[in-house]
Amino acid sequence: MAGSSFGTIFKVTTWGESHGSAIGAVVDGVPAGLDLDRSDIQPFLDRRRPGRNRFATQRQEADQVEILSGTFEGRTTGTPVSLLVRNTDQRSHDYSQIASCYRPGHADYTFDRKYGFRDYRGGGRSSGRETIGRTAAGAIASKILSSMGVEIHAFVSSVGPVAMTKAARELGPEDFRLASLSALAMPDPEAEKQAAAFLDECIRSGDSAGGTVTCIAANLPAGLGEPVFDKLDALLGHALFSIGAVKAVEIGSGVSAASMTGSEHNDTWRMSEDGKAERAGNCAGGVLGGISDGSLLQIRVSFKPTPSISKPQQTLFSDGHIGEIRIAGRHDPFIPARAAVVVESMTAITLLDLMMQNMTSRMDSLLRFYGQS
Amino acid sequence: MAGSSFGTIFKVTTWGESHGSAIGAVVDGVPAGLDLDRSDIQPFLDRRRPGRNRFATQRQEADQVEILSGTFEGRTTGTPVSLLVRNTDQRSHDYSQIASCYRPGHADYTFDRKYGFRDYRGGGRSSGRETIGRTAAGAIASKILSSMGVEIHAFVSSVGPVAMTKAARELGPEDFRLASLSALAMPDPEAEKQAAAFLDECIRSGDSAGGTVTCIAANLPAGLGEPVFDKLDALLGHALFSIGAVKAVEIGSGVSAASMTGSEHNDTWRMSEDGKAERAGNCAGGVLGGISDGSLLQIRVSFKPTPSISKPQQTLFSDGHIGEIRIAGRHDPFIPARAAVVVESMTAITLLDLMMQNMTSRMDSLLRFYGQS
Amino acid sequence: MAGSSFGTIFKVTTWGESHGSAIGAVVDGVPAGLDLDRSDIQPFLDRRRPGRNRFATQRQEADQVEILSGTFEGRTTGTPVSLLVRNTDQRSHDYSQIASCYRPGHADYTFDRKYGFRDYRGGGRSSGRETIGRTAAGAIASKILSSMGVEIHAFVSSVGPVAMTKAARELGPEDFRLASLSALAMPDPEAEKQAAAFLDECIRSGDSAGGTVTCIAANLPAGLGEPVFDKLDALLGHALFSIGAVKAVEIGSGVSAASMTGSEHNDTWRMSEDGKAERAGNCAGGVLGGISDGSLLQIRVSFKPTPSISKPQQTLFSDGHIGEIRIAGRHDPFIPARAAVVVESMTAITLLDLMMQNMTSRMDSLLRFYGQS
Amino acid sequence: MAGSSFGTIFKVTTWGESHGSAIGAVVDGVPAGLDLDRSDIQPFLDRRRPGRNRFATQRQEADQVEILSGTFEGRTTGTPVSLLVRNTDQRSHDYSQIASCYRPGHADYTFDRKYGFRDYRGGGRSSGRETIGRTAAGAIASKILSSMGVEIHAFVSSVGPVAMTKAARELGPEDFRLASLSALAMPDPEAEKQAAAFLDECIRSGDSAGGTVTCIAANLPAGLGEPVFDKLDALLGHALFSIGAVKAVEIGSGVSAASMTGSEHNDTWRMSEDGKAERAGNCAGGVLGGISDGSLLQIRVSFKPTPSISKPQQTLFSDGHIGEIRIAGRHDPFIPARAAVVVESMTAITLLDLMMQNMTSRMDSLLRFYGQS
Repeated sequence: MAGSSFGTIFKVTTWGESHGSAIGAVVDGVPAGLDLDRSDIQPFLDRRRPGRNRFATQRQEADQVEILSGTFEGRTTGTPVSLLVRNTDQRSHDYSQIASCYRPGHADYTFDRKYGFRDYRGGGRSSGRETIGRTAAGAIASKILSSMGVEIHAFVSSVGPVAMTKAARELGPEDFRLASLSALAMPDPEAEKQAAAFLDECIRSGDSAGGTVTCIAANLPAGLGEPVFDKLDALLGHALFSIGAVKAVEIGSGVSAASMTGSEHNDTWRMSEDGKAERAGNCAGGVLGGISDGSLLQIRVSFKPTPSISKPQQTLFSDGHIGEIRIAGRHDPFIPARAAVVVESMTAITLLDLMMQNMTSRMDSLLRFYGQS
Repeated sequence: MAGSSFGTIFKVTTWGESHGSAIGAVVDGVPAGLDLDRSDIQPFLDRRRPGRNRFATQRQEADQVEILSGTFEGRTTGTPVSLLVRNTDQRSHDYSQIASCYRPGHADYTFDRKYGFRDYRGGGRSSGRETIGRTAAGAIASKILSSMGVEIHAFVSSVGPVAMTKAARELGPEDFRLASLSALAMPDPEAEKQAAAFLDECIRSGDSAGGTVTCIAANLPAGLGEPVFDKLDALLGHALFSIGAVKAVEIGSGVSAASMTGSEHNDTWRMSEDGKAERAGNCAGGVLGGISDGSLLQIRVSFKPTPSISKPQQTLFSDGHIGEIRIAGRHDPFIPARAAVVVESMTAITLLDLMMQNMTSRMDSLLRFYGQS
Repeated sequence: MAGSSFGTIFKVTTWGESHGSAIGAVVDGVPAGLDLDRSDIQPFLDRRRPGRNRFATQRQEADQVEILSGTFEGRTTGTPVSLLVRNTDQRSHDYSQIASCYRPGHADYTFDRKYGFRDYRGGGRSSGRETIGRTAAGAIASKILSSMGVEIHAFVSSVGPVAMTKAARELGPEDFRLASLSALAMPDPEAEKQAAAFLDECIRSGDSAGGTVTCIAANLPAGLGEPVFDKLDALLGHALFSIGAVKAVEIGSGVSAASMTGSEHNDTWRMSEDGKAERAGNCAGGVLGGISDGSLLQIRVSFKPTPSISKPQQTLFSDGHIGEIRIAGRHDPFIPARAAVVVESMTAITLLDLMMQNMTSRMDSLLRFYGQS
Repeated sequence: MAGSSFGTIFKVTTWGESHGSAIGAVVDGVPAGLDLDRSDIQPFLDRRRPGRNRFATQRQEADQVEILSGTFEGRTTGTPVSLLVRNTDQRSHDYSQIASCYRPGHADYTFDRKYGFRDYRGGGRSSGRETIGRTAAGAIASKILSSMGVEIHAFVSSVGPVAMTKAARELGPEDFRLASLSALAMPDPEAEKQAAAFLDECIRSGDSAGGTVTCIAANLPAGLGEPVFDKLDALLGHALFSIGAVKAVEIGSGVSAASMTGSEHNDTWRMSEDGKAERAGNCAGGVLGGISDGSLLQIRVSFKPTPSISKPQQTLFSDGHIGEIRIAGRHDPFIPARAAVVVESMTAITLLDLMMQNMTSRMDSLLRFYGQS
């Protein structure tokens, strides 16, 4: 069954495995007339590229993207944009030990059960490398959104027990600049220092850590989301849970909503100092009834710790016995730092698709477009 | 843009508003040969029916379902099953006060922004009554799943600050029977007593409360979920965030995963007393790499407090001024008790669709079906 | 598997069988702000209603449509429009003879093979009554198209060997008025007279006749169609072949294209008398490269003769023997007269969906819509 | 808007233009466990490769396919199969003359109107080279179908006024072998000789010719097709009209059905000499009520003449004037010989998708698959 496409009008199809020859995406529904070359896409890939610092796997991949179709003289033509990244450092011998067992926390067991066998050289399609395609597609979506004034930022908001202190809605350009320079994609240098120390300790003990990514979108128009099944939050839930290792998605108040009362949770209205009606809080996180309300969109995504750890673990072998495994090889001790740009990309893809869908929601829009008013 | 359908092979399309003449669903892709009459569906609707106790709105609706198509001599024929429930107690005068303002926490503002105007008699399509269609469809999905041995149970696991103490995976048939009798859909009578006291206090003070619904699915086969975008958890995220008032969805360890280490989070394997390989824990919640692993599926959904409260609130009026509103009328002080069956229904619809999709994932399945092996 | 929905942005889901209690459609993606009540829909249903003259089945059905959702104070709200038509004259005893055999030219055999059994009271879902849902949906699509200046007309262009003489592109308002008054939906009274005589002879001899429906759409904007799989002609092919009894679909020159040379077939350009560039011919039928070119859209659909005939036929019985059957009951001797409005409806649904899809094909459209230019 | 994907469970997404760097397809939903390497695909591409004889464009392209993902150790893994063909002989200077005008019969005008500009180096996405992706995908579908006993053959049945004499249902293996050796893909050497003479005359006079492709599928199981919108014939109509230059699609009796009576058209049943119930004729073409009936599937597709001709033509220039154009360059004088394999591929893709969809149509199939019976 086909599960490799996402989106309705702006549709992304990804392909490729960690140890195949290449990885890529076909981005369909890109509007014609967008200036686009690989320099628009490469920075997104660089943010998730391995090997850049001690908190990422040491696999060496340049992850250089090639645009194979869909542009002419530097502009998109309205036809599908095909994106290709060659794998160069597959080193499959690192993975030979895992052919005969099911690594705890990995998809080895479930792929075997579903498909009858698996590509035992690594994560295959469940590897983090699969996210290259969606990140490249997200770069295109982000560029289009940016031209319409929408700005999306995803960053690491906690590492294990260490959380940043500033609230997401108080962050500004300088914070996002700091996050872009941070090895852990954190906008808070103080928290980052503690987080790095915590991660170093995890690495030393052959362990790994979980964490959260927060994503915000500013200047989003009101009206995005298609009730009842394609609500803004429903499509974000779909998009973000499709990223490996995600265990929770929260919008606005998230899990804390469950222990609040209505009078605490409702975002009442007030007049701002410059005379504009605004909401006093943002428990809604920018979404009411599944439709954007023009406030800041606020999302939090919880990632589990990397399942590949070098500590010994008991696991199931394909011959049926239980035995010990110690996972060697090159692994990220922490997923969110590299996954932040993936969260940002999936958010961008979702928002752009909904912005396009929303253009047809009213008769007056149709009449205006087709010159009848 | 069309957003009222969910599912690929088992596809549900819902329609209807709180103050229209009727509400319903078309359930397409129901396999032929299922015994089905309205007695299979009515109990699901009864679980979400209003007016049954003091913790639910006093709107009186019998919510009697009619099957208009898709069955012949008591069995499904493979053609779409159309389900209809008439609205009987619309009483739209209760809602006249809200025509001119945007209720905090409601979709009034966003519907107006998206569509240019709204049905001001009530929540319209964003009302809780919209869930009738999906619940009726969920009853059909649940019956099919049940015939394949899959059992799904959703129940209230917390009310404001009051949480049940038993872990979800320890619950058994007796607990689910208790939940089915409970006014708050809780399987834990002790916790329910405290929760009821808390809710009574909320009602007295003109306020409302949030809470959580936990949903489990037992005996689920391994192999469900279609990487990479239609993973089991991704489709559940889509399905559950499409329910009104949901602010967070968690699978297995959920938000707690973010503060764990790999050695804590990985579900290692062990040999059970009766010599079966099993996982020592279930942080995965039954899903690895987006595919079911044959363990118990565990989901937690956080609902915000009902936005309709009688306490005075500051809000925006459609003429642009900020003023006070006190919401009269009949409202649930607490959503999860009636929403538990909706969570169960959306889970059932998602699981059945993926069970059907999974039938085509291997060549040997095709060859067997078409008599070539 | 779900096959009862059509369209991407403007999406129609139909349900119902010939001998069930009702038939209907859910029309999703209707833009908000359209004036709509049942008087917009009933005339379309009346055009396909049985029993109006001697060339149609004598089954008596009023086919009165009810709008159950999606409108408020006479305007669409952007939520799904649910349409319902009750069956009143099922008379299933007429059909009892066919329970044990497979009628030649009918779907009895294929439904049995696919689903394991069938509703033997009549055509079930393969009956012509199934088209009620799409016709009601088509009425809504047509009203929206009409407000944008697009006019669609479908009419009978041949009955057995009798064809109208005027070319489709020469027809004007008076011809369409004549067609609307014609018992055979023909715009050519002379041809109609011959056709009626031919049909009377068919009826007398217990036989039936095939025929063609021609459909044109005028004032269609250039640019509709989404290469490469959702081309305008591809979606029309899908839409029109989904109508029962259709054996061929032709666009523009159709089958005659195959025996032409390039210099005959290419529509060259010329300057019209009033100085506008125009095509000298319309072999293209309004579509080039799968995209509308602003010329008249021209479609021809061939319908097979009604399979229900009273002449004796040899057929297969469900117990395996071959025997004779004479089909009694009430049947149309000729399908196209009632099917013309169905062709028109499916064309309208397809065109509107593509008009909506086309709104997002360029960056400048997005920027204009979201106020950036 | 995204229009580059086709299929529901077996889903093909294509990308690439005639003058870009490459062309390809992503084939999603390929069942795991299929032996697959490029030697399975290359023969299909070779059948549509240019430059092989005097009836095809002299553009030189090796059209060598590369499999980038989805296989491991020679077998499919269930993940998307990405296919890539590099363009090598773009020679865009041949096309410079057409940058300023709209060639009659081409998509130049419609692409400009839809997207605001176009890749003026050639047909871009509307070029025949676009079909490389679908043909490569079709090779995979055909291999799977073949393993289930289904055999598909497409061949040229007429060239301009010259038609083959044998009926499609009388053809056997020897005829298909002849077609595979024929420069015109015709199974009838006598007709081919006349057709070649006719085409030589067309070439000499700077003209081109239309023709028909007939496609049959043998050993198709009964039960394929999903009423009412995804009927077998409806999806074939969609698939085949999505091929460039197609002006008509016919199933079984096709356009001739319209002039027949019911007693002529109905395929009655009889007992075969070896005592099997069979239909006496095949006007149905293998489809009744949109579902395959187990008979031979018969399709005829009419192609228009190649629009690129060297005869002078009047056309519109982008500056608004009408002028003369003579199209130089390398062009096929006749499309169907190379398009036959494209028709076969689209038929295979459609049939396989429906075979997969059909696996879920009955409760007993689900129960058997999931071990409950």
